[in-house]
Amino acid sequence: MDHSPSTTSDGSLPMSETMTAGAQMAAEIAEQPDVLARLLGRATEIEEVAAAVRRRKPRFVLLAARGTSDHAALYAKYLVEIRLGLPAGLVSPSTMTLYKAKPDLSDVLFVAVSQSGGSPDLAESTAVARECGATTVALTNVPGSPVHEAADFSFALEAGEELAVAATKSYTAELLALYLLLGGDPAGAAALPAAAAATLDNAAAVHAAAARYRFANRLVTTGRGYSYPSAREGALKLMETSYLSAHAFSTADLLHGPVAMLDSNVPLIAVLSGDAGGDSARAAVDRLRDTGTDVLVVGPDAGERGLALVTEGVVPELAPVLEILPLQQFAWRLALDRGADPDRPRGLAKVTRTR
Amino acid sequence: MDHSPSTTSDGSLPMSETMTAGAQMAAEIAEQPDVLARLLGRATEIEEVAAAVRRRKPRFVLLAARGTSDHAALYAKYLVEIRLGLPAGLVSPSTMTLYKAKPDLSDVLFVAVSQSGGSPDLAESTAVARECGATTVALTNVPGSPVHEAADFSFALEAGEELAVAATKSYTAELLALYLLLGGDPAGAAALPAAAAATLDNAAAVHAAAARYRFANRLVTTGRGYSYPSAREGALKLMETSYLSAHAFSTADLLHGPVAMLDSNVPLIAVLSGDAGGDSARAAVDRLRDTGTDVLVVGPDAGERGLALVTEGVVPELAPVLEILPLQQFAWRLALDRGADPDRPRGLAKVTRTR
Repeated sequence: MDHSPSTTSDGSLPMSETMTAGAQMAAEIAEQPDVLARLLGRATEIEEVAAAVRRRKPRFVLLAARGTSDHAALYAKYLVEIRLGLPAGLVSPSTMTLYKAKPDLSDVLFVAVSQSGGSPDLAESTAVARECGATTVALTNVPGSPVHEAADFSFALEAGEELAVAATKSYTAELLALYLLLGGDPAGAAALPAAAAATLDNAAAVHAAAARYRFANRLVTTGRGYSYPSAREGALKLMETSYLSAHAFSTADLLHGPVAMLDSNVPLIAVLSGDAGGDSARAAVDRLRDTGTDVLVVGPDAGERGLALVTEGVVPELAPVLEILPLQQFAWRLALDRGADPDRPRGLAKVTRTR
Repeated sequence: MDHSPSTTSDGSLPMSETMTAGAQMAAEIAEQPDVLARLLGRATEIEEVAAAVRRRKPRFVLLAARGTSDHAALYAKYLVEIRLGLPAGLVSPSTMTLYKAKPDLSDVLFVAVSQSGGSPDLAESTAVARECGATTVALTNVPGSPVHEAADFSFALEAGEELAVAATKSYTAELLALYLLLGGDPAGAAALPAAAAATLDNAAAVHAAAARYRFANRLVTTGRGYSYPSAREGALKLMETSYLSAHAFSTADLLHGPVAMLDSNVPLIAVLSGDAGGDSARAAVDRLRDTGTDVLVVGPDAGERGLALVTEGVVPELAPVLEILPLQQFAWRLALDRGADPDRPRGLAKVTRTR
């Protein structure tokens, strides 16, 4: 294999070879307000897909995704159950790919979510779902990809090419697209790009948090309701970029068993929104803080040491789009502080080829 | 608060106060072959519930549980999708309890799984599901408990009182009851009690594994398909009893991002069954082993250092009942080796009172 660096037509090294560590991920994090604004400009395109889906009158919704996109799918599950009043489930692709299940999926809406659109198991389970009678929708960042091609209706996120292995802008684009697809009012999202930009403008707090946890080798993240996917995705970012052990738990599950893990050496990152889920989680987190757990809050009311969000004018259902932003920045900063390159985590490829 | 030990009527300390550390959990682990045999003797009782459910012709299945029982629910999701050919989802109770969703659940089978039957959020979501038109079934170990009372059809596991905080016998009873409820053939389970007893008879291998990982403070568990719930439950046992950080990943997801966490200091426990899920997982695990990851295999073909299962005469769908047994023993032994009492993990109560 040829390991010499490739060169561009003018003979210089291509951008990605010469950039400093983490520059790619930083650039993609910073693009998010623009990506969100562009998506909002295409709200009528998503509404056309949503209207076509409504005409099929789905009674049950299945969501299929892997990795980061699986957290967007989890967010969508809450939207479907709460906003659309339909039962929903996350697909285990192996049942259709490895175990060859052919379930009866008439009246089912099947939504595949994937940045690359390239995972063979997602493409195959989307195709099987369609054969089995489901109405299939794909949200991907790569038009023409296998997942995009497999579905009845496909929407391209147009978040721009994502080069850093740790997904950032494709995740928030997926969240907003799912909100718009699943009955969310575009007016409730109008303030989102500005709120995202204001939330991202917090370097001092992010640096302080990264300094504080520089030598932590384990941490736990938690959230409830709509904020639970944020806790999951934040933990994944930390694992991908900083190799630390970051466990995410729904705040309800946290009190069931994993709480035994928490001691004064294991900090808790709590994503506390302003809605009913946040209120419930806050009570549990306060109890843990009282017993000595170190807590870093992410939320509109984050306290002095926390990672604050600017949420003015944004509907509560969209809080997850903002919640993940300081967690992406924190994961990026912590990786750099530890001497790792968050653009190139060891052992990872951008598209995973499982079946 | 009165902290003096309570006494029994004859003035002696009650059993649980005088037993040696871990004796309760050890006793409950050892009871499992008998618990399984008793359940098989009641297969016709479960079949009556299954027949009543079939008459309602459910089109979708929702499963509701927390903690250990959530892993039994995940097992049931695979059974429903593969054996019954119906789409299925795991319920996020907060959508019905905190966010007050009232989804249309006609044609839906809603199965609540709970050792104690005492979680208020499970009882409430079962009641809401019933109001919303679902056929509701409860599997609990405590007849008369709120979850048991909330459902249309309730089946008591009769696993005997479970006193250790880390659930063991109630979990395997839940797995077998779900297999029988969801179309599993009792004949395929006839050999299960003997296979469980033979699998549990492996003290030397369990002690060797616990010695090997005595000073690990993080580990990762993995499995695919039916074995994924075993990986999840094994990780929870380790977290509950030994306070180490144990991450569980579907083997497909493991290659997406968390693999960056694995290095020579983070061992991998791989649950590798003999079916299609196991074959797929084995290929990925072999790749990780080749790059230097320390691997402990749990399965029928566990290698010299692994935790072997005796599976003769047991259908592949029931492998999870056996897979968890050496992981329970390993968690118990590791906790004792580390000076902890697996019967009394810090910070945990047997019933969690979340809403």
